Amino acid sequence: MPLQYRFKAKPYDEALKTVLQAFPQKASYELVPITEALGRRIGEDIYAPFDMPMKNIAFYDGYAVRYEDTRAASASNPVKLKVVGSVLKNGEETGLRIDRGEAVYLSANSPLPEGADAVVREELTSREDDFVLVKKEVELYEDVVLRGEDAKKGDILISRGSIIRPQDQVLLSEIGLSRVRVYREPIVGIASVGDELLERFEKGIPYPDNYSFLVSSTLRLIGVKTVSLGILKDDPDEIAEFISRSIEYYDGLALIGGAARGVKDYTGMSIEKVGEVIFHATTLSPGKVSGVCKVENKPVFLVPGHIGSATSSIYNVIVPVMSRMFYDGVELLPKVVARLTTSVEARPGSYTFRTVYLEWSSTGLNATPYLKRLGGSTLITILSKAGGFILIPPGEKLSEGDIVKVTLLNPLEVLSWKS
Amino acid sequence: MPLQYRFKAKPYDEALKTVLQAFPQKASYELVPITEALGRRIGEDIYAPFDMPMKNIAFYDGYAVRYEDTRAASASNPVKLKVVGSVLKNGEETGLRIDRGEAVYLSANSPLPEGADAVVREELTSREDDFVLVKKEVELYEDVVLRGEDAKKGDILISRGSIIRPQDQVLLSEIGLSRVRVYREPIVGIASVGDELLERFEKGIPYPDNYSFLVSSTLRLIGVKTVSLGILKDDPDEIAEFISRSIEYYDGLALIGGAARGVKDYTGMSIEKVGEVIFHATTLSPGKVSGVCKVENKPVFLVPGHIGSATSSIYNVIVPVMSRMFYDGVELLPKVVARLTTSVEARPGSYTFRTVYLEWSSTGLNATPYLKRLGGSTLITILSKAGGFILIPPGEKLSEGDIVKVTLLNPLEVLSWKS
Repeated sequence: MPLQYRFKAKPYDEALKTVLQAFPQKASYELVPITEALGRRIGEDIYAPFDMPMKNIAFYDGYAVRYEDTRAASASNPVKLKVVGSVLKNGEETGLRIDRGEAVYLSANSPLPEGADAVVREELTSREDDFVLVKKEVELYEDVVLRGEDAKKGDILISRGSIIRPQDQVLLSEIGLSRVRVYREPIVGIASVGDELLERFEKGIPYPDNYSFLVSSTLRLIGVKTVSLGILKDDPDEIAEFISRSIEYYDGLALIGGAARGVKDYTGMSIEKVGEVIFHATTLSPGKVSGVCKVENKPVFLVPGHIGSATSSIYNVIVPVMSRMFYDGVELLPKVVARLTTSVEARPGSYTFRTVYLEWSSTGLNATPYLKRLGGSTLITILSKAGGFILIPPGEKLSEGDIVKVTLLNPLEVLSWKS
Repeated sequence: MPLQYRFKAKPYDEALKTVLQAFPQKASYELVPITEALGRRIGEDIYAPFDMPMKNIAFYDGYAVRYEDTRAASASNPVKLKVVGSVLKNGEETGLRIDRGEAVYLSANSPLPEGADAVVREELTSREDDFVLVKKEVELYEDVVLRGEDAKKGDILISRGSIIRPQDQVLLSEIGLSRVRVYREPIVGIASVGDELLERFEKGIPYPDNYSFLVSSTLRLIGVKTVSLGILKDDPDEIAEFISRSIEYYDGLALIGGAARGVKDYTGMSIEKVGEVIFHATTLSPGKVSGVCKVENKPVFLVPGHIGSATSSIYNVIVPVMSRMFYDGVELLPKVVARLTTSVEARPGSYTFRTVYLEWSSTGLNATPYLKRLGGSTLITILSKAGGFILIPPGEKLSEGDIVKVTLLNPLEVLSWKS
């Protein structure tokens, strides 16, 4: 064999640690209007800029009163108060105040006039010209939202790294922000390697490089943009040229397998022409021939070309690196706690990646590992049924009934949940 | 008061039933390329068009053999077989066959030659010219994926209404599809009603109608497109004209409150000029002044203008109608099972909507209802902390420790989960 290439194998825990240290943490940011912020990760802590609400406000439409004036009031023995004004518009400044025996009509959310310390809901009153009959005794601050009851000035409202949801857009705009700092999404270029993929392409198969969906769609769902760069031949020179020509345009590259021989022999070898192999081959099962290289200080991921090993490589190698480099280490995938329905153990000497089927029972979430012959997760329909995964360290065994942490394959998984 | 408008109040259960019957189920579809299908709901059942895999294939690189030939093989006493061919390309048709004492070299995923019934992994062999030494006894079908083992022809692979995830894109393309039928996303036009919002707009407040984020972003996350149509004055003629002018362009409209008085008096009244009020006001708390009207056979939602009641109205009125009309009743929001950390009961006579804080404990998911004074969910920072909701029917009480079903506010919630 004329080609010489030696795997740079490392145990998975060491490989991951080395890789995470090999690349700079280089999160960067964009300023986007609140309207565009949905689903982005916020790049700053957001503090309450003032007490919320800023004043004591009415919780319902009704009458602002001094609670002591309502003592012993009832339907049969109402208290009569003089109405000295009304506040109909949300937030209107009126300069009104009340004294003993007086009341002011308020619409909900209006600030209480000075002197008032409770609200009587409109349905507990009846109006007689300039007077109101109060038919129920109210307590101090009844139906009043106190200044700062929702949040005090300086309270943290949204933490850096959080996902911006609809209710966060409301909150951000409520405190007067029109733009917000979010993490810039890195861009990863994706190419598939393999003569046989080119042959499928020439036969007119619409997506001959269909495993690239796994990489690109999964990354898109966790805040990484992707560009599909097509198919490369099993040719170390072509692969090397592709890498050195493309790397400057992206924050990283992912090369998906090709034939197993291609991964083993050619991709790693081509990297040695243009950069450094940090590791290639590791104690991950499946996903053994995963690798990470460094070219112009950026990561080039070597993703095995089989469905199960590609999946393992995405979650156990690419996602942690993306989190560390571009999101300050924030967890990019959701985790859940589930009860294992069957026992499962690590393959000898391997960090064993097992996809699991997730189902809600009447008491909580059950996780069923795919344990079919041959390790299950390598079969494509099984991956489609899976909702999450567990990674079992070497030598460990999990038993039926154990409570385990399961990482969801992506946030869309939950849209298929029924309970 | 010159204006006359009578609420068409209905109990919530009856109101919802009436509304669901008032509108036609009218799901429609688009054909999209697999590349564009991520996150869409599939509009057809997908069946396996052939056995998967189509033939018995090798699970690892190695030698296809007759398992009986390996009997008693070991490292110290290997069995020698004649190599009569090799299959290096994934899926290549070779017409090869083996007889007793013969073997064929295969790369992973290649179909077994006729006569072979097991695979010996390459690392368990050594090669000597045209012969291979097998150092381990293998079983029948060892390291072989059997024809149809992943799925049999006609098996259902993906059910109508499911969300298309990355692994589903792989599966769809694997069975040769390049396009897939998905549910067309309906389009809802959203306007806010209220003179005070116009005043805030004139003061230069960037998003004076910020509660519209709740409606538009929540709907967008569950497959409903939205268009923001701005702010309307508290003027029944203007509102009526807006509705009759806009309705033809959308699948529905949502009008968000304005002042409480506006909702009560003007919006319902304006509907009566152009369509039918199906119900307005219901036993939903908060969300009592929610309403649904029918204009040109399309829904016009009346959403109360307070944060808690708007939220309740979105989840308890708009979402079920969208599901029924445009998604054949599929659940559009994820549900989870959680343990209640504190007791909570319905307000007398009301379906009580409670947002809950969700947190994973070491054994499962805990749900803590916001029970602060005044019903909590009406405060904006509390809504930002909430992850889901429960709806408690009148007269019901839930106790601490009860297991409840919680609906997530949107699928993004899970991205903030840690466990």
